[in-house]
Amino acid sequence: MDGSAPPQFHPTPRSQVRRRPQRAAYDEATVFSILDAGLMAHVGYVIEGQPFVTPTAYWREGRTLYWHGSAASRMLDAVGDGAPVCVTVSFLDGLIVGRSGITHSVNYRSVMAYGTARVVADPTAKRAAMEAFIDRLYAGRNVKLRPTTDAELAAITLVAMKIEEASAKMKATAPAELPADEGWTAWSGVLPVETRIGPAIAEPREGPRTDDLSPYGPGVRLDEALTRACRSPRSARNA
Amino acid sequence: MDGSAPPQFHPTPRSQVRRRPQRAAYDEATVFSILDAGLMAHVGYVIEGQPFVTPTAYWREGRTLYWHGSAASRMLDAVGDGAPVCVTVSFLDGLIVGRSGITHSVNYRSVMAYGTARVVADPTAKRAAMEAFIDRLYAGRNVKLRPTTDAELAAITLVAMKIEEASAKMKATAPAELPADEGWTAWSGVLPVETRIGPAIAEPREGPRTDDLSPYGPGVRLDEALTRACRSPRSARNA
Repeated sequence: MDGSAPPQFHPTPRSQVRRRPQRAAYDEATVFSILDAGLMAHVGYVIEGQPFVTPTAYWREGRTLYWHGSAASRMLDAVGDGAPVCVTVSFLDGLIVGRSGITHSVNYRSVMAYGTARVVADPTAKRAAMEAFIDRLYAGRNVKLRPTTDAELAAITLVAMKIEEASAKMKATAPAELPADEGWTAWSGVLPVETRIGPAIAEPREGPRTDDLSPYGPGVRLDEALTRACRSPRSARNA
Repeated sequence: MDGSAPPQFHPTPRSQVRRRPQRAAYDEATVFSILDAGLMAHVGYVIEGQPFVTPTAYWREGRTLYWHGSAASRMLDAVGDGAPVCVTVSFLDGLIVGRSGITHSVNYRSVMAYGTARVVADPTAKRAAMEAFIDRLYAGRNVKLRPTTDAELAAITLVAMKIEEASAKMKATAPAELPADEGWTAWSGVLPVETRIGPAIAEPREGPRTDDLSPYGPGVRLDEALTRACRSPRSARNA
């Protein structure tokens, strides 16, 4: 402990949580722990006043989020040249079942991250980022893969968004028990929800499963596997 | 078969899928099957040019989506009076692991639904909709619950959105095998991802588990439980 405050995001009215602020957090550690447990984000952007929300795979490096897709994608056309975006990552952790309608709810973890998305056009930077994505998911895998060609790289549009503001919001509770619920005996409790890896489906003539896939054993929670993978040492090619 | 075409959504440029259109569908049956397998949506809306994406629980009745929250919520303040919204529901079904970077991908199902959100203010309509939400999740449960008071009902803001347009997009494949990948032997295949109910955590002095909870046994897939629940007969109170 050196007495310095842990890194925080500083909310403006854009990211300040208004509803149930006791469930909110703005510190980097909490925000990053949620972002690093996920693979799919919902990216929100605006075209001529119309909102769009596109689900897409993402990854994080420091305070920057990345996602990619075909250059044909409407999302990337719209956000690539510096449009404001909101990137939301959420986990449903449980169904809360109460004794009155009002006490039914869900447990969850979520982050809303705000920034300006920009296309990464430089081929060297693009190649490094795409390899970092593979290694973030499957640490050490890049060196086992057939290298990406320049033409393949050119067909990918890569977007980077520096996180300007972010808020986390979480709930992990049992059902509320209101005074008016007394005497009502409907079953009450939490039905946990867990997202896990299933049994792998191998392609014919596959090589052996290597260490880069070790976080993803059958039955493992996906959020835990993703967190473990992104803490693992990366490929030499990418170091 | 009476020869009539099944009901469809009719895409305009807003909802027409441009990237990989072979993965898209606009028929009601496909769109509804994805919406009815989900509980959490990501609702996109715009305030003064800034996009926001809020995760929230939703339900469907016919071509109308509903969601709710405290009257303090920014989302509901913003969308309640007739703003355009995009409601996206998505499922991650698997990690596709290829032999080259470009063939790594994910399997998924998703719907993007577009419309105009409006607050449902009438207390009778609100009460019926909130009971329909409980019964959509836990068929027959309403009659077991302590009834919602008028004050509780007044504290809820309920939003309805008629779906004007919707597109579904899905992928469920093995990794692509490109000619250039020949001879590379990294393990290749699909790591399925499944979201399931965990072991229930009961409150003290709970009543017995009743039929309304029967879809949610431990180990059951959440998407299948939600689909089954919304096909079940509803409460008498709500019929």
